[in-house]
Amino acid sequence: MRKIPDDFKSKLHNLLTLQTLSYKEGNVADYIPALAQVPPELMGVVVATIDGKVFTAGDYDTQFSIQSISKIFGLVMAMNRVGDNLWKRVNMEPSGQPFNSIIQLEWEKGIPRNPVINAGAILVADVLASHYSASKLAFLSFMRSLANDENIYIDQEVNQSELIHGNRNAALAYLMKSFGNIEAEVPDVLTHYFAQCSVSMSCKQLAQSLLFLANKGIHPLSNKKICTPKDAHRVNAILSTSGMYDQSGEFAFSVGLPAKSGVGGGIVAVVPNFGVICAWSPPLNSFGNSVVGMNLIAGIAEELGLSIYH
Amino acid sequence: MRKIPDDFKSKLHNLLTLQTLSYKEGNVADYIPALAQVPPELMGVVVATIDGKVFTAGDYDTQFSIQSISKIFGLVMAMNRVGDNLWKRVNMEPSGQPFNSIIQLEWEKGIPRNPVINAGAILVADVLASHYSASKLAFLSFMRSLANDENIYIDQEVNQSELIHGNRNAALAYLMKSFGNIEAEVPDVLTHYFAQCSVSMSCKQLAQSLLFLANKGIHPLSNKKICTPKDAHRVNAILSTSGMYDQSGEFAFSVGLPAKSGVGGGIVAVVPNFGVICAWSPPLNSFGNSVVGMNLIAGIAEELGLSIYH
Amino acid sequence: MRKIPDDFKSKLHNLLTLQTLSYKEGNVADYIPALAQVPPELMGVVVATIDGKVFTAGDYDTQFSIQSISKIFGLVMAMNRVGDNLWKRVNMEPSGQPFNSIIQLEWEKGIPRNPVINAGAILVADVLASHYSASKLAFLSFMRSLANDENIYIDQEVNQSELIHGNRNAALAYLMKSFGNIEAEVPDVLTHYFAQCSVSMSCKQLAQSLLFLANKGIHPLSNKKICTPKDAHRVNAILSTSGMYDQSGEFAFSVGLPAKSGVGGGIVAVVPNFGVICAWSPPLNSFGNSVVGMNLIAGIAEELGLSIYH
Amino acid sequence: MRKIPDDFKSKLHNLLTLQTLSYKEGNVADYIPALAQVPPELMGVVVATIDGKVFTAGDYDTQFSIQSISKIFGLVMAMNRVGDNLWKRVNMEPSGQPFNSIIQLEWEKGIPRNPVINAGAILVADVLASHYSASKLAFLSFMRSLANDENIYIDQEVNQSELIHGNRNAALAYLMKSFGNIEAEVPDVLTHYFAQCSVSMSCKQLAQSLLFLANKGIHPLSNKKICTPKDAHRVNAILSTSGMYDQSGEFAFSVGLPAKSGVGGGIVAVVPNFGVICAWSPPLNSFGNSVVGMNLIAGIAEELGLSIYH
Repeated sequence: MRKIPDDFKSKLHNLLTLQTLSYKEGNVADYIPALAQVPPELMGVVVATIDGKVFTAGDYDTQFSIQSISKIFGLVMAMNRVGDNLWKRVNMEPSGQPFNSIIQLEWEKGIPRNPVINAGAILVADVLASHYSASKLAFLSFMRSLANDENIYIDQEVNQSELIHGNRNAALAYLMKSFGNIEAEVPDVLTHYFAQCSVSMSCKQLAQSLLFLANKGIHPLSNKKICTPKDAHRVNAILSTSGMYDQSGEFAFSVGLPAKSGVGGGIVAVVPNFGVICAWSPPLNSFGNSVVGMNLIAGIAEELGLSIYH
Repeated sequence: MRKIPDDFKSKLHNLLTLQTLSYKEGNVADYIPALAQVPPELMGVVVATIDGKVFTAGDYDTQFSIQSISKIFGLVMAMNRVGDNLWKRVNMEPSGQPFNSIIQLEWEKGIPRNPVINAGAILVADVLASHYSASKLAFLSFMRSLANDENIYIDQEVNQSELIHGNRNAALAYLMKSFGNIEAEVPDVLTHYFAQCSVSMSCKQLAQSLLFLANKGIHPLSNKKICTPKDAHRVNAILSTSGMYDQSGEFAFSVGLPAKSGVGGGIVAVVPNFGVICAWSPPLNSFGNSVVGMNLIAGIAEELGLSIYH
Repeated sequence: MRKIPDDFKSKLHNLLTLQTLSYKEGNVADYIPALAQVPPELMGVVVATIDGKVFTAGDYDTQFSIQSISKIFGLVMAMNRVGDNLWKRVNMEPSGQPFNSIIQLEWEKGIPRNPVINAGAILVADVLASHYSASKLAFLSFMRSLANDENIYIDQEVNQSELIHGNRNAALAYLMKSFGNIEAEVPDVLTHYFAQCSVSMSCKQLAQSLLFLANKGIHPLSNKKICTPKDAHRVNAILSTSGMYDQSGEFAFSVGLPAKSGVGGGIVAVVPNFGVICAWSPPLNSFGNSVVGMNLIAGIAEELGLSIYH
Repeated sequence: MRKIPDDFKSKLHNLLTLQTLSYKEGNVADYIPALAQVPPELMGVVVATIDGKVFTAGDYDTQFSIQSISKIFGLVMAMNRVGDNLWKRVNMEPSGQPFNSIIQLEWEKGIPRNPVINAGAILVADVLASHYSASKLAFLSFMRSLANDENIYIDQEVNQSELIHGNRNAALAYLMKSFGNIEAEVPDVLTHYFAQCSVSMSCKQLAQSLLFLANKGIHPLSNKKICTPKDAHRVNAILSTSGMYDQSGEFAFSVGLPAKSGVGGGIVAVVPNFGVICAWSPPLNSFGNSVVGMNLIAGIAEELGLSIYH
C-alpha cells in the first residue's frame, strides 16, 4: 500500500490554496435554480484511507448536492438486489456520447450503454423503485449507514426543481419503457431518480461512505460487507471508463483513477487498496465536471503516486 | 509487486488445456484470404515479467499477424516524435462505436476519438509517414529493437491483401483529409498503415517488446528509455478504456487490465509494475477479439490477482 | 381538368377485384389490440371529384381508424389558428428517417423535421391543446363539418390502447418539452394527440372531407373557405415529400400524388384541381403503408393520368 | 397548358431588376478557387417552353459551372443504359441530411438515399465509367446533342480544382466501394464525376436541354425520344423531393416545382407539360442554393401559376 508522507496535511492545504482562483474558470450549474445559488468560491477536499486516516482541507464538512455521484450508490444497491440479472438490461461499455444523449439509447434499442449515464441510472432507479416498497427511504438509509451518520437528507428544494426541469430524463425513461426495459410506472421511477440525485452530503461523508470500493467490498470502518469483491471491482471498472462524462478518457489519461462527478461540483475518486478522495467546488467545465475538483484530485494523485496505470 | 506462485508454470499449462475446444466458439477473420488460412486450433500464451522471468505455453513461439496490436507501437513512435502536438489531432476518449465507424469521425469533424480505433491509428500513420523518410523501415527497426530480435518481418501476402480490401480505411483517411487532419498523401498514409498491420510476431516477441509499458517507459531487459513515464501511463490508460474494440468496458469489468487485441487473434495485456501477458488464438468473437485469448488472460489475471481495479 | 372515362365505375371495380388476394402480402398493425382485430380482407376505395362526382367500390362505407391521416386535419387547424408562427416551431423538410425516430429530433434540437412525422404532429397537437379550451371537441367538430356528416366519433377502445402503448410518443413529447418546444403539459398534449388518431371514418367521409386541398382551400361541396390557397398548396407539398413515411420518395417516383397513410390501413391522395382518392385495406407493408391501398391508388392514378410529375 | 400573358417578357425583366441587390445576401462558393472568381453580380434567367418559345433576361447567355445540375443528365444516361437495375444500387428517398453527409451512407450500408445527393451521383458516375469506354466524351456528346449546340466544354481549371479538393467525395466513393457498391476503380469514378460537374453551360443551353423532362421524355425541338415517359416522371419526382439539397421541402412548400441547383449558382426547374426555367446567380444561401436564382424561379412560378401542388 502506498505510504502517505508525514507532511501530507500541509501539502493538501497548499494544493487547495493553489486553486483559490481557478473556480472562476468554470460555471456553476444553472439548469435548476437551487443549484445556481451555491457560492462558487466554496471548495473542500478529503482523503480517507482504508486504515482509518482522514485528511481534510477547506469546506470539507459543507453539504452539497451529490447529483450523479448518487449513481454509484444506486448501482451497488441494485447489484445487491438483483444480481447479474441487472446486466441483461444495461451494458458496461463507455458511451462515447454526452451523458444524457438519447440517440445512443435509440440505437441500442433501449439498453443503456452503462449504469452511470443518465439512461442507465434511470434504469437502476427502476430496479430500486420496483423492488423496494419505499425505495427513497431505503436509499437514504443505505447512505446513512455507509457514512455512519444520520445527518443525510434529500434537499427538498433541489428535488422540486429536478422534477420541474426533468423533461429530458422523462424522455429517456419513456423511450426505455417503449422498448420494454422499464418495469415500474415512469413517474415513480423518475420520483426515485430525482430524490436520489437531490441528496446532500459533505466531502467527508462521501469519502467515508465509499471506502468499501477501495477495500474489496468490505467497509473498513464498520467491517461490514457492503458488496462482493467482484462487484467492487466492477464498479471501479465502470467508473474508470465512464465516470467522468465525456471526459472519462482524458481523466484516465491524465489522472488514472476510477472516479465519478456530479453537477453539484463534487467528484469522488477510488484508489483501490488505499482509500477514497472527495473534492468539491461548484463551478463546472464544459463537460460538467468541477474544474477545481479535477485539479485537486490530479494534484493529490500525482503527489502520492496513486494512478492505477503506473 | 505481485508474487508468482511456484507452481505457476503448470497452472499456465492447465489454463491452456482448459481452452482446447473453446476456439470453436469463434470464427477466424476472413476479410482477407491470408488471415483466413491460419489453422484455428493454434494457441499460445506468454507471461513476461519486468524482472526478466518468462512463462510460456502452447504455440508461444509461432508468429502471427499482429494487426491492430501494431497500433500501440505506432502510437509510442508518434508520441516520441511529435510530443503533445499529437493530442491536438486525436482525442483520448472511448468511442462507444464499432472500431471502424465513420459516423463518429464525421460528427467530430475529422478528429478521431482515440488513437487505437482505425481512424486514430491512420492519423498516427500519417504522423509517421510525414516525419520519417522511410517510415516502414523505421517501424520495423523499432519493433526489432524492442523485441531484441531481428527475426521480425512484414508478411507480404497479408500486406497485399490489406491494400486490396482497405476501402473502408481509405474512406476514413479521405474523410480526415477533407477536414484537413491528414498531412501526407492518403495512399502513402495507407501504405504505412497496412504495412504496420501486416507485421508478424510471436507471443513471446510481443510480450517482451511491451515490457516498457509495465515499467514506466524503461525497457527492463535493455534498460533503455523507450518513452517517458507519463506516456507509458497514457498508453495504459487508453488501452484500458479503448483497447478491446466495443468490448473494452466488459473487459475492464471482468478482467481489469489495459489490453489491445488484433484480428489476427493476438491480445496483449499490460500489468503495471509487473509485466505483460500475450495470448494468441485465431478465432474471434463478434467484437473481433480472440475467444481463447480473452479466456486465457482472464484466467491468468484471476490466478495472480493482477486486476488494476482491486 | 382530367376527364373521367364513362366506364370508370366498372374499371374501379376491376382494380379492386385484382387486389382480392394482395392483402395477404401485408400485416395488420398489431401494436395495439384494437387495431389487430380488424378483418384483414376488408378493402374499399373512393374517388371524389371537386365537381361533385363520387365513385366507390368495396367497403367504402365502413369506418376504420384514421390514425396518421388525422395529421392533415390537425395541421390545417393549427395553420388556421396560429398562422406562420407555426413554422418557427416545425420545419417542412422530408425526414429521411423512420416516422417515429427520436434521433433526428435530438439533432435538430427539438424542432421536428415536418408536421406529418409523429414529433411534428405532436407539436401540432400542442398548438391545438394550447389554443382551444376543448381541443378534442373542436377537432371532432372540424371533421364533421368537413365531411358534412355528424356520424364521426373517437373510438374509445383504440384511444385507451393508444394511451397505454404511447411510450415512444411520450418520449418524443418530453424531448421537445426539454428543448422548450412544447407549451402545454405533456399529458394534455398526448391526450389530444391520441384522441385525434383514434377517430374512425370511412373512405367516403375522408375523401369528401379533403376535397378543399384539391380546390385551393375552398370546399367544393359547401363552398366554404377551409384554408388559404397558399396553405392548401403547402399541405400538398408536405404530403408529396413526406406523407408516406419512409416510402414517400418511392410513392412520388412511382405514383406521383400528394398522399398520407395511416397504420389503420387508410391512404388518402390529393389530385390538385381534380379531387381526392381514398383507399383502405388493413394489412401494411414494412414501411407502415397499406399494401392494397397503395396498389389501388397507383392503379387509379395510372388509369386517369393523375400524376403531378407528368 | 398554362397560357403565357403577352407582357411576360417585360414582367421577366422586372423580376430580374427587383433582384439587382439581392445577390449580396449570399456568398459565392469558395471551396475551389475557380468558382470563387466568378463576378457575384452576374444574373440571368430563361423560360423555355415545349412549344418552342424562349423568354430571356440578363446574362442568360453566359456560361457558368453547372456543378450538381449535371446529376440530372448523368442520371438519365445511367437509366437509359442499365434500366431498373440502377434502383437496386441507389434509393429514391429524400435524404433528410446535408447533401454530402457520409453518416447516412454508413447507416444504409453503402446504398445512397437518392441519385442527386453526392453519394448517389458518384454511384451514377460509376455506372457511366463502367459502361462507357470513354464516359466523359459520351457525357459531353449527350449534353451537346440535348442543347443542340457544340459549344459545351469541360472547364479544365474547375476540373483540376475539383480533383484537388475532392477528398470528401473520395471518402464517399471508398465507403461505397467497401460495401461492394462501386464497380470501377474509385479514381476512375471520381475522374468522371468531377469532369461532369465541371461542364460549363448557359441558362439558355440548360433550359433547352431539359425540355424533354417537361414533355414525357420527348425533346420537343428535335422530336427525339431522350428517355421513357416513366423515366421522365421519375426524374421529376426525385427532383421534387430531393433536388434542392436540404431546402427541398421548403422549395416544394413555397414554389412547388421539380428543381435542381448547383453550387455554381444555377437552378433549373421543370414544369411538366409546359417547359423549363433556368436561373443563374453565383451567390449561395446557407443550403448551397442560389439566393437570386430561387427568388427568380419563385417569382416566375407565381406569375404564371406553375406550381404542381395547386
